[in-house]
Amino acid sequence: MKILVVGATGAIGSAVAGVLAERGHEVVRAGRTRGDLQVDITSDASVEALYAAVGRVDAIVSAAGGLFFGPLAEMRPADFNVGLQDKLLGQVRLALLGQHVLADGGSITLTTGVAAEDPVRGGSNAAAVNAGVEGFVQGAAIELPRGLRINAVSPTLLTESLTAYGALFPGVETVPAARVALAYVRSIEGPLTGRVLRVWQ
Amino acid sequence: MKILVVGATGAIGSAVAGVLAERGHEVVRAGRTRGDLQVDITSDASVEALYAAVGRVDAIVSAAGGLFFGPLAEMRPADFNVGLQDKLLGQVRLALLGQHVLADGGSITLTTGVAAEDPVRGGSNAAAVNAGVEGFVQGAAIELPRGLRINAVSPTLLTESLTAYGALFPGVETVPAARVALAYVRSIEGPLTGRVLRVWQ
Ligand SMILES: NC(=O)c1ccc[n+]([C@@H]2O[C@H](COP(=O)([O-])OP(=O)(O)OC[C@H]3O[C@@H](n4cnc5c(N)ncnc54)[C@H](OP(=O)(O)O)[C@@H]3O)[C@@H](O)[C@H]2O)c1
Ligand SMILES: NC(=O)c1ccc[n+]([C@@H]2O[C@H](COP(=O)([O-])OP(=O)(O)OC[C@H]3O[C@@H](n4cnc5c(N)ncnc54)[C@H](OP(=O)(O)O)[C@@H]3O)[C@@H](O)[C@H]2O)c1
Repeated sequence: MKILVVGATGAIGSAVAGVLAERGHEVVRAGRTRGDLQVDITSDASVEALYAAVGRVDAIVSAAGGLFFGPLAEMRPADFNVGLQDKLLGQVRLALLGQHVLADGGSITLTTGVAAEDPVRGGSNAAAVNAGVEGFVQGAAIELPRGLRINAVSPTLLTESLTAYGALFPGVETVPAARVALAYVRSIEGPLTGRVLRVWQ
Repeated sequence: MKILVVGATGAIGSAVAGVLAERGHEVVRAGRTRGDLQVDITSDASVEALYAAVGRVDAIVSAAGGLFFGPLAEMRPADFNVGLQDKLLGQVRLALLGQHVLADGGSITLTTGVAAEDPVRGGSNAAAVNAGVEGFVQGAAIELPRGLRINAVSPTLLTESLTAYGALFPGVETVPAARVALAYVRSIEGPLTGRVLRVWQ
């Protein structure tokens, strides 16, 4: 399959791109500043230019999207909108514009995270955004034509990200990126749609 | 208790305001164009002016928030952002700015809907927005100080709204607004926090 991975230079995306290439797929790696192609998921024009450059694909993977972390007591609506515009609308944009470049039977796989269901301090935006992406996936799955599918992968904290984010997730058992990457393979090569594939210990 | 109901002139809000008044609470009714006071939940300045006018309250109820309905195949990111800015960020704004005007032990009750969990055609924005509000409620509950609580009520289609929205929800058993209003009473007068109170047959 020809597979576009957005966020392919990140902790999750590089593991996903790696395992997909090992499995014989043709992988196009996109990042904001690195990768084969550059894209900004917060811009319609940028995402449309990416799809025009890549052409028809069998799968679109998103492992990108920023959140706002901070104490609820100090959070402003504009702070909260950061995650809505980036990880939520950014990934929805990849799906809405991407549905038209997918080959029959193709798939879209977005990324959420454990904070959708197990809240962490400072994570009210993460909880809302991740849950919103999961709601979108369930809502969109029933409308996709031509055997197209859409799922979300919800990883817990990556072992590789423990130093960066460990303080936010006390006591959480991490999972290696290689194990998280398998859930993307399951979404792409398997039959599921409208599902949240959780990768938690 | 002194209770502010935003969206108090709507199908749900008027039933909620009515039952709260019957139970002896002092109810302040806000709407966009009607009610005791006017507010636009998509504007920080408007919500801040409302809270300044109302002063300290024991409970804030939101029964307001618009969604975008339409076929996924034609949906644009800007369409999708309508629901993000209105029902999702609008209600989050009421909560973020409202936490500071609540008396100790006070509560916030937001409104989602069955489409978060049982998708309907044309409802991918509704699914995302409602799920996002529910994620926020779970995430925010663990951070609220002073015994403050936050919940969401998720109604199915109201009997009173069957003519307006029935075509979107084929075969759905409706619930009367008076029954939906009880869930708001449970959120306000009961002990629950971080919960989604579903009102489905
Ligand atoms: N790491 C974890 O433990 C973990 C756990 C659960 C969920 N997640 C979620 O998984 C997603 C990826 O996390 P990560 O840790 O792998 O991130 P990361 O290492 O910071 O990498 C982010 C990737 O996304 C790209 N990117 C950033 N902003 C972009 C934009 N506006 N448009 C297009 N691409 C953009 C980056 O490109 P450049 O490198 O070119 O800048 C990079 O490829 C995030 O949504 C995160 O919330 C992560
Ligand atoms: N009706 C149902 O069957 C049903 C079922 C499940 C969930 N819901 C959800 O419940 C919520 C209320 O639904 P409803 O049917 O009761 O709505 P409705 O009858 O249309 O009433 C909407 C209420 O919100 C106010 N409002 C609208 N936009 C506003 C804004 N920008 N700022 C502040 N107030 C605003 C209106 O004020 P004015 O009257 O002054 O304009 C009115 O009080 C919606 O989010 C809806 O998705 C409804």
